[in-house]
Amino acid sequence: MTSSASALPFDDIRNLVAQMPGPDAEAVADVRAREGNLTKPAGSLGRMEEIVEWLAGWSGKSRPKITRPMVAIFAANHGVAAKGVSAYPPAVTRQMVENFAAGGAAINQICIAHDLGLKVFDLALDMPTPDITEEDAFDEANCAATMAFGMEAVAGGADLLCLGEMGIANTTVAAAVLAALFGGDPKEWVGPGTGVDSDGMERKRAAVAAAVARIGDVKDPLEVLRRVGGREIAAMAGAVIAARLQRIPVIVDGFVATAAVAVLYKMRPDALDHCLFGHVSAEPAHPRALAEMDKTPLLDMGMRLGEGTGAALAAGIVKAAAQVHDSMATFADAGVSGKGAE
Amino acid sequence: MTSSASALPFDDIRNLVAQMPGPDAEAVADVRAREGNLTKPAGSLGRMEEIVEWLAGWSGKSRPKITRPMVAIFAANHGVAAKGVSAYPPAVTRQMVENFAAGGAAINQICIAHDLGLKVFDLALDMPTPDITEEDAFDEANCAATMAFGMEAVAGGADLLCLGEMGIANTTVAAAVLAALFGGDPKEWVGPGTGVDSDGMERKRAAVAAAVARIGDVKDPLEVLRRVGGREIAAMAGAVIAARLQRIPVIVDGFVATAAVAVLYKMRPDALDHCLFGHVSAEPAHPRALAEMDKTPLLDMGMRLGEGTGAALAAGIVKAAAQVHDSMATFADAGVSGKGAE
Repeated sequence: MTSSASALPFDDIRNLVAQMPGPDAEAVADVRAREGNLTKPAGSLGRMEEIVEWLAGWSGKSRPKITRPMVAIFAANHGVAAKGVSAYPPAVTRQMVENFAAGGAAINQICIAHDLGLKVFDLALDMPTPDITEEDAFDEANCAATMAFGMEAVAGGADLLCLGEMGIANTTVAAAVLAALFGGDPKEWVGPGTGVDSDGMERKRAAVAAAVARIGDVKDPLEVLRRVGGREIAAMAGAVIAARLQRIPVIVDGFVATAAVAVLYKMRPDALDHCLFGHVSAEPAHPRALAEMDKTPLLDMGMRLGEGTGAALAAGIVKAAAQVHDSMATFADAGVSGKGAE
Repeated sequence: MTSSASALPFDDIRNLVAQMPGPDAEAVADVRAREGNLTKPAGSLGRMEEIVEWLAGWSGKSRPKITRPMVAIFAANHGVAAKGVSAYPPAVTRQMVENFAAGGAAINQICIAHDLGLKVFDLALDMPTPDITEEDAFDEANCAATMAFGMEAVAGGADLLCLGEMGIANTTVAAAVLAALFGGDPKEWVGPGTGVDSDGMERKRAAVAAAVARIGDVKDPLEVLRRVGGREIAAMAGAVIAARLQRIPVIVDGFVATAAVAVLYKMRPDALDHCLFGHVSAEPAHPRALAEMDKTPLLDMGMRLGEGTGAALAAGIVKAAAQVHDSMATFADAGVSGKGAE
């Protein structure tokens, strides 16, 4: 329950973050060289070309292929749900985990459509983290252990990781994390989540404001995570660290996943360079969170479901981009005249 | 070569456009009813949900499935290429058609990635339409016949049609069509296309201005098409008419495809309600063309290749949207508590 005597766990996390490697410049150069010979005008595939360079840089592969894409959903419950901040009861978290297992959820169908693997990790659903308006979500050892669980989850050789989550009340927790990290009026980080009514919105704003006020001027990102975060948020942050160390490019889903990775951004501004933001969601503060980190999302579909659905939809585009680069003919192969030929 | 004695062909086209049916309101209502029971908050999939309603309305199916999606590429050559308006020589049109046949182009790979059929129609590549700065592209009979060819191309039972094109110099022709239809300074409809240099851009602006000036104040959309259009543009317009009559939803590709369908929009403002605009391209005037018709594209990826690539990429999302709606569990199926449950 409490910290083990043997370690300062956050120091281990800080060391791992400090060790995150940069991009493989040689692989990027190889992609650019091949790109220029493919049978299309240079640059004409726009962001699809940028995506392939990004895949090369962070996978270390000169000819990146996506053959084992995986969606990982982390599920958790939150004591702050007792404050009436969600349109749904906390029991829905487990019910949805069971729905994922049975193949009945939206994410299952997107995974079928785009041929993505799916793993669901439930994080002690029967033991919600404490209500963050009243006490810290974790002690340091448990927070670090949950991040380590997220790191483990990535092991197993995926070549593209889509990060998603499920957790009744977790947009409340995400808003508190973002407000503590980026500042501003805490209430302005709050939105309707799954669709809470106006009274619920008032309770949600009050809860986020209370949580942020409780921790005062704590600015250390891991301390913010420990004090006002939650288990799926800690696990996603851990997964992003491990993916970088294992050279697995990541697609981040929506508002809650963005809050999780913002913890790492605040530790090291280039910590998310191996992450693509799959979409901007309908949650009103999501664009602001992305702007704080200077990230441009791939899709803008007005989605606000979580479960990794936005990331998985974006994965279809990333897979197509890799396929295009890997399998197109070159001008020489195809006997097509280049630019300016007579 | 010239008009047959037996008909006023544009009157036949006008009759078909007038006969275009509206959406199937019952199918849309069925989709909405099912949507409300699926295991997610109402509206939480945003535009994915709108796409399924759109598919239902225009396919007439209460439970739309995409099992036979097709990309149709229409290829043609243009006399105006002689004015030095493109970075590539006209021979590239046929070379790229051969590349499509051999599976070497970008569109082939996107079709593989998203499991889309591909048909390529080449339209008399050895006989470019006349230089539109000097004479009309077609006589009425040939223009109507080319539209009819495009209608035929759709026959065969696709359940989603992605419309694309290939044709050296066709962004010049598209700019002329759009300028004639929507007005404004013709030069402002001109962009770099596949990447013409600054001298080429000057020649291109001059060509579009000359073509538009030549036809004076012609406003009839079919007359604009006949006088400053081209074969792939006429064929795509025809395909969109036939798709509506055959209840096949359409995804329109980029700048050139948008010019083609704008002809129909100007004949009847609801003529494109069965069309989704797959993306906004990097061609500078594409956003303006979409805005003139109040259309919101699905993707914004900085692409400017044509070949149906933007439409095909969007088709991956449309397929996923249909899969989600068709195969998700309902709250009752999955034993998940609804909103506001205790």
